[in-house]
Amino acid sequence: MLKDQAFLRIPGPTPLPPSVERAMIRPMIGHRDKAMDALIADLIPRLRPLFGTSGAVYLLAGSGTLALETALVNVTDEGDKVLHLITGAFGERFFRIAEGHRRQAIPHHVPWGEAVDPDDVRRLLQAHPDVRAVVATHSETSTGVLNPIADIARVVREHSDALLVVDAVSSLGGTPVEMDVWGVDAVASGSQKALMAPPGLALVALGERARAAMHRIQSPRFYADLRQYEASLAQSTVPFTPAVTLLFALEASLDLIEAEGLAHVFARHRKMRDMTRAALKALGVPLLAADAVASPTVTAVRPTRFTPKALLQAVRDEFGIVFASGQGKLKDEIFRIGHMGYLSEADVLQYIAALEVAAKRLDPESPLGAGIRAALEVTLA
Amino acid sequence: MLKDQAFLRIPGPTPLPPSVERAMIRPMIGHRDKAMDALIADLIPRLRPLFGTSGAVYLLAGSGTLALETALVNVTDEGDKVLHLITGAFGERFFRIAEGHRRQAIPHHVPWGEAVDPDDVRRLLQAHPDVRAVVATHSETSTGVLNPIADIARVVREHSDALLVVDAVSSLGGTPVEMDVWGVDAVASGSQKALMAPPGLALVALGERARAAMHRIQSPRFYADLRQYEASLAQSTVPFTPAVTLLFALEASLDLIEAEGLAHVFARHRKMRDMTRAALKALGVPLLAADAVASPTVTAVRPTRFTPKALLQAVRDEFGIVFASGQGKLKDEIFRIGHMGYLSEADVLQYIAALEVAAKRLDPESPLGAGIRAALEVTLA
Repeated sequence: MLKDQAFLRIPGPTPLPPSVERAMIRPMIGHRDKAMDALIADLIPRLRPLFGTSGAVYLLAGSGTLALETALVNVTDEGDKVLHLITGAFGERFFRIAEGHRRQAIPHHVPWGEAVDPDDVRRLLQAHPDVRAVVATHSETSTGVLNPIADIARVVREHSDALLVVDAVSSLGGTPVEMDVWGVDAVASGSQKALMAPPGLALVALGERARAAMHRIQSPRFYADLRQYEASLAQSTVPFTPAVTLLFALEASLDLIEAEGLAHVFARHRKMRDMTRAALKALGVPLLAADAVASPTVTAVRPTRFTPKALLQAVRDEFGIVFASGQGKLKDEIFRIGHMGYLSEADVLQYIAALEVAAKRLDPESPLGAGIRAALEVTLA
Repeated sequence: MLKDQAFLRIPGPTPLPPSVERAMIRPMIGHRDKAMDALIADLIPRLRPLFGTSGAVYLLAGSGTLALETALVNVTDEGDKVLHLITGAFGERFFRIAEGHRRQAIPHHVPWGEAVDPDDVRRLLQAHPDVRAVVATHSETSTGVLNPIADIARVVREHSDALLVVDAVSSLGGTPVEMDVWGVDAVASGSQKALMAPPGLALVALGERARAAMHRIQSPRFYADLRQYEASLAQSTVPFTPAVTLLFALEASLDLIEAEGLAHVFARHRKMRDMTRAALKALGVPLLAADAVASPTVTAVRPTRFTPKALLQAVRDEFGIVFASGQGKLKDEIFRIGHMGYLSEADVLQYIAALEVAAKRLDPESPLGAGIRAALEVTLA
């Protein structure tokens, strides 16, 4: 392992493309400058296709967690009944956000590694007809599960007037999000995952019903009050000093995404997922999530013949490759591979090869070469 | 004026030093990485001298406005009586934050351009003995007034049990903030002013009384809940994905501040202020604030023989020098010069010279050379 050489293969923050790095050091501009107005006016319409919406997109300086909180406090009131479809650590976090803000949060716990069953959502909505919002996670970063948001949205629309709020932090830009087509009311995301920008930008998109709620809701809020952002956006500006260097970075990221084309970006992520999963299966290392619900951006691996910790240490020490540990109740059970953002098939082949070496060192019976061969077959397919 | 040449002389965001720019493009690291723990463990103690505290300092991803909100919602509860000492647009914003969060906010309006009179604070505290917190602005960015926080703190401590919460967004790192010595309970600031880092980091420092309040307060909060940051800090980490590139930048800024020495940094800011004020007086252009209350980081100018707008346009078009317009009720009455952060006497001489040219073009009777001469005398003094 070379000093300072680190290959970040965690589910965010993800490595920055060179052009994004360079964008950050554009000369600073004032946030009341025409150049800032032009930047905001440029960014917002270019973000809409990622959300699959013709609606409103807001940018706040803050983490993805702020995006989740902002979506929630703008479309629900204190005391409102909110149904949380919890499939992992980030579903739990969203639940705690709702509790922290005095919503009547109802948890629906799905075993970690599985996806939400829309039939359960129907049943729950029938049991709780007064639910004002349903909160779901698109790609659950802690388990690598992609929840069927389109199906969930259909059930929510058919069986309630509840708004559907979706955490798309690790899905936006890596897999299709189709707010308008699916009927999703609010989507929250961050800059540091498939969007290939540094962490520190919270993105929130609201559909028409959510925007109407935003104007009705009395929930106390100020920094997260999207009414202020909406009023500013009408002048292509922002209510508070934005994270200027991160907006520069996001603009450069969008250049890359548009140059590649969204369809190709999504196909690349699916391929990276499929290569990763094929390799691990060939190596006989169990995956947490089933193929049908596997996220295109993150894969959770549940090894049985060595510990996740030993594997993480081995690939890091020998190759400088950084995977992530598990979170919450799966902290010591799994490790996670982030394959999103500025990552290519070449990067996947590299980490699979490294993973094979580490697996062999930890488990002499690991079949050397089988993983990379399976990945190559996916590449060639 | 050269293409892309812009000299940002606004009261934040301020220009980034080269080493701060370079720091932002250090390879991305994961926020659960040991390198991040080390970064947090390095930053926090180095920030304490800027706040003048041995207490707690918290870093959040977000704007300065988030810092203000965070300070308030962690030390006061809904319904609490909060006395706001309002000397300009940012005092008004803090008042709106308190209203947005359902505090019983009591405004004390001071004419813009003047400082808070501590005697008024005493009188107000006697009239409202149940005030739970007093909110003051240190350097009011919209007027260039430095409020006498030490004197205000003395009065607050003597005449009440109220906590004192101070907006130090445009003072921290440019002029002494002495939380512990003065008896200030909570200080909020941002990264993008005298700290010479990009916007997007909110800094909040709490003294002992404020930390005790934080654990007692029931006010709904999640992203801004400093109890979570405190729990994470015990492990030198952060509860939510931090703005990694901005933390890199802040570390580089602190390197510069420490290399120069805080006393010299403050002296430099005072000198830049004095040069600026001497020049404008020599040119016969009125200043908004009196010498006794003039902020070392920002100067508000109230020209009579030309409009602020014409002056802003003139220095920008001819020299690429960017001053700021007024805010709120002084929007068309003043312009503001930011002289903080990575700015030197050389930069001040440059903008004064440009200002002289613009003044002469707009007012043929403007005494060419008088301003720069007055500034040089301050430099030589």
